[in-house]
Amino acid sequence: MKTPNPTRRSERSRQAILSAAFDLVAEIGYAKLTVEAIAARAGVGKQTIYRWWPSKGAVFVEAVLDLSRDERGELALPDTGDLRADLRGVLRAIVDEYNDPKLDAMSRALSAEALADPALNSEITGRILGPILEATRERLRSARRAGQVAADADLSVAVELLFGPVYHRWMLRTNPLTHEYADTVVEFALRALAPTQGESDSVSVKG
Amino acid sequence: MKTPNPTRRSERSRQAILSAAFDLVAEIGYAKLTVEAIAARAGVGKQTIYRWWPSKGAVFVEAVLDLSRDERGELALPDTGDLRADLRGVLRAIVDEYNDPKLDAMSRALSAEALADPALNSEITGRILGPILEATRERLRSARRAGQVAADADLSVAVELLFGPVYHRWMLRTNPLTHEYADTVVEFALRALAPTQGESDSVSVKG
Repeated sequence: MKTPNPTRRSERSRQAILSAAFDLVAEIGYAKLTVEAIAARAGVGKQTIYRWWPSKGAVFVEAVLDLSRDERGELALPDTGDLRADLRGVLRAIVDEYNDPKLDAMSRALSAEALADPALNSEITGRILGPILEATRERLRSARRAGQVAADADLSVAVELLFGPVYHRWMLRTNPLTHEYADTVVEFALRALAPTQGESDSVSVKG
Repeated sequence: MKTPNPTRRSERSRQAILSAAFDLVAEIGYAKLTVEAIAARAGVGKQTIYRWWPSKGAVFVEAVLDLSRDERGELALPDTGDLRADLRGVLRAIVDEYNDPKLDAMSRALSAEALADPALNSEITGRILGPILEATRERLRSARRAGQVAADADLSVAVELLFGPVYHRWMLRTNPLTHEYADTVVEFALRALAPTQGESDSVSVKG
């Protein structure tokens, strides 16, 4: 007879809790979300949640950041050395997320609340969006060191060149979000960020 | 003794009505907006509004589009031949609008409602955003004819390269919206859209 594996059981509870937090924000909004409701939906006791997280906000933030973490649990963009491929992967994944009905509903509900509540907005910006933008800037810094991005490019604006168009199209539902679209945005961004002629010369001279 | 000028009086009423519609959306939201409330706030009779507009939606759309019209009442971007200067003017104006507390409040209230109401969203996208994006595409088409934009550039994505970053920064309040920022976005977009080496050669050969 096998003994139950506590790690696997914990991971199952963890996933159920994160998933419940997600669904509830889509259904009732963040303001009405409670730890009690998450526990009931996930089929766990309230104390199980409090053992791992201090608040409903902490559960929800982890649920969202979980989507962007790699298999080691780190929030970093892939760095294969191929900037085009890495950025395409990121933007295609975002397009897939927005095309997922559950994630779309959750994101719209949360965005509507954040519009009306600057404190919630700065929570989201600081704890969810901020780390994702910083991970992207870090990937662009690495590309800059490799001579693939202009030395003087403002990377805070560069990340908005990637995410801004996708976000605009998603929020305003102007046109379909496809992988082809994601690739086109990456292509424009790569041209915008490319080293100037003189720079790439000096890089090839140095190399 | 001067006789009252009816054109001037009408224009004053028109401005008062548009301004009332605007303020009311910021204060109570679009859903609760009524022609009665607009009339009361503007200090005119309901019939004055119905003489010029068929519905509250028509008043509101005109109030927003009025911001983007030139002195001849046309929704067109300036075309001085200097693409950089023209696009800087547009993005700086958008930044100024977002930094205007009244317009910021109205836009956030409306965005929150549109998130929850796809029909309202498609009304806004079709009647307000659509014409503005199309006017911008038209300016880029003119630039393409002048050899300033790559022949194969997807102009539906190009307009999102301009508006997307500004919108992302405004919605998510990540960083200040300044003229310097607007100019940086234009600079990136111009690089992204620039004709490739071969293209610009052939233009200069033709010229």
